[in-house]
Amino acid sequence: MTTVRTRVAIIGAGPAGLLLAHLLDAAGIESIVVDARSREQIETTIRAGILEQGTVETLAETGASARVLAEGHRHDGIELRFDGAGYRIDFAGLVGRAVWLYPQHEVLRDLIAARLAAGQDLRFGVRAERVEDASGARPRVILTDADGQPLTIEADFVVGADGSRSVVREAVTGSSTGGYFREYPFAWFGILCEAPPSAPELIYSNSPDGFALISQRSESVQRMYFQCDPEVDAASFSEAELWDALQRRVPGTTLREGPIFQRDVLRFRSFVAHELRRGRAALVGDAAHTVPPTGAKGMNLAVADVRLLAPALQALLLEGDERLIDAFAETALERIWKAQHFSWWMTSLLHVAPGASEFDRRRQLGELRSVVGSAHGAAYLAEAYTGWPLAR
Amino acid sequence: MTTVRTRVAIIGAGPAGLLLAHLLDAAGIESIVVDARSREQIETTIRAGILEQGTVETLAETGASARVLAEGHRHDGIELRFDGAGYRIDFAGLVGRAVWLYPQHEVLRDLIAARLAAGQDLRFGVRAERVEDASGARPRVILTDADGQPLTIEADFVVGADGSRSVVREAVTGSSTGGYFREYPFAWFGILCEAPPSAPELIYSNSPDGFALISQRSESVQRMYFQCDPEVDAASFSEAELWDALQRRVPGTTLREGPIFQRDVLRFRSFVAHELRRGRAALVGDAAHTVPPTGAKGMNLAVADVRLLAPALQALLLEGDERLIDAFAETALERIWKAQHFSWWMTSLLHVAPGASEFDRRRQLGELRSVVGSAHGAAYLAEAYTGWPLAR
Repeated sequence: MTTVRTRVAIIGAGPAGLLLAHLLDAAGIESIVVDARSREQIETTIRAGILEQGTVETLAETGASARVLAEGHRHDGIELRFDGAGYRIDFAGLVGRAVWLYPQHEVLRDLIAARLAAGQDLRFGVRAERVEDASGARPRVILTDADGQPLTIEADFVVGADGSRSVVREAVTGSSTGGYFREYPFAWFGILCEAPPSAPELIYSNSPDGFALISQRSESVQRMYFQCDPEVDAASFSEAELWDALQRRVPGTTLREGPIFQRDVLRFRSFVAHELRRGRAALVGDAAHTVPPTGAKGMNLAVADVRLLAPALQALLLEGDERLIDAFAETALERIWKAQHFSWWMTSLLHVAPGASEFDRRRQLGELRSVVGSAHGAAYLAEAYTGWPLAR
Repeated sequence: MTTVRTRVAIIGAGPAGLLLAHLLDAAGIESIVVDARSREQIETTIRAGILEQGTVETLAETGASARVLAEGHRHDGIELRFDGAGYRIDFAGLVGRAVWLYPQHEVLRDLIAARLAAGQDLRFGVRAERVEDASGARPRVILTDADGQPLTIEADFVVGADGSRSVVREAVTGSSTGGYFREYPFAWFGILCEAPPSAPELIYSNSPDGFALISQRSESVQRMYFQCDPEVDAASFSEAELWDALQRRVPGTTLREGPIFQRDVLRFRSFVAHELRRGRAALVGDAAHTVPPTGAKGMNLAVADVRLLAPALQALLLEGDERLIDAFAETALERIWKAQHFSWWMTSLLHVAPGASEFDRRRQLGELRSVVGSAHGAAYLAEAYTGWPLAR
């Protein structure tokens, strides 16, 4: 059995794991990053990418993905549409901030390329099985490498950046599922299509038929979603039915149609792990929390976690100072629960809940009117959407 | 059978009916106001009185109750308390506005005295039975007078200001109950006690045991509430148990105790009538809508209704111009649904719902933190609490 030693073992080569490795490297702390997936799988899975201003600044400042500023699309607002009319939430005017549309896999490509170019340790196809002795001074990760051979990583600290089915979670929370949950009675039907954008900015529409989001990927590829039953069979819709479902939910805009080349049903759930750190192990990103996609907080929250954890590990491993790592969970959780609230709020504001009464429906329209009719309400939404300040 | 004629028959001598009569009189439009209760009943029922700035200005400007400014207590903020700490919502600093604490029955005394002093028609102990021919040019109200004799009022317009059990509602909506409803799984246990104020401003507390509101009446009488089961028997609590229930819900403040001389259980419900106007009849105040008390919107919404209806009746009856009365329901409903939302929001933000999950609870604390941690969030709440602008 092969045993390797490093200072920080990072399980998971998603945005959280890769950015953390980059930040640690900049501080002179060596790490190993492993992921059960292949490089190609990671680089070609098309995922949403609405980046908060602070996320973009982090990627640009740290040199991790300078492309984001050059190639990302800056959006200074979104449109909320309800009751037959559209209302722009003017991020720039309300809070002086913006978001960037940039596909998540492009960020990952940049981070992977930078790490490999610098000759740092990044291993694909390596599956973590469990973490041992997380509470001791020398935690170990037991893995199976790309050739099916057993591998042990001995480290000063183990970070679980291994997504919603995290293997590290059990070592931190005492249970593979230990966390606070919420399920939602609906899902999103998502399509990718070859077409130009239907509108200059994202449209979040609350229609009598349910929610729709008209989003963008590039000049020639668009991403659109509509609220559906979680049990729906994605294959059962014809293209015409999909366009009809989308179009009915955004009255007033004529969608620009094109070949639909991907379709999927996204389940909605909220999750926060009971604990984020135990001894010499911590959770970040989806391993620590899941949010419904309505608030676009998933990747941004992962970046915020890592912005907190990197200096904490630096103080712990270079100076033996435990204060930041001891404060990590509580500090991270404050943002996580605000983001959970925001994601829940955007979801409940825009979706038609199955079984909602006519009172609920009109109350919801009253809320939408309150938000768009108040500079304070609109700024409260804009501030959360573009992202609260990050730890410095 | 006696038949009397007037221009506007106003059923109900609560704040909405009396203020409307006053505004109509100022415009030279004669009215009759009737109420099934006695004058004493109306003047001695102690009810909450948190007046929005616009409500106070309306009462003062119209001369209806100048005392409100001299004797009311201006509050420039409230305190939200949760998770062991208190956070002031600074109305003055955030939105430059305030609210006034003033018992509702004092407003009623002023309005009744002014009307009687001017020799205008105001009849107590007169019970409306039904409204006939509301869609015609000459609607009639069929009543039973204080001596048990039948009475008919013929009018150009009938206004239902007759509370949540409105008799006029059926003529407007086609059904005595026709409306949008929401019930809540909790109630407020309210007490009145002889004691000085426990805190300079109102405290809205979200505690693990449930909600509490530490409110005020005067220098020597206080009003306090705590969340309870709607089925609870108000008589079953000892005074010591009541103080314990209240004190546990506001950790950090020592309540000033005193003899409890009134106790009651307030049910929570939300209601909006399906229609607010049909032909020559309209609904205002509690006849048109009920809100849970958390947002303190009840009386303020009644005043806002009347501020819209008075000029509409003036245009209709003096100039034959139907435009304002035709727009009345839609314009009023915009504010009503915003107020319904705000009342629901304050309620869901501050109460512990029976059966709430640990996720829900932490999400709620995340929301409270988002609101108090954001100048925009706090201003959004302050703006609604102190009241959106009124029709001019």
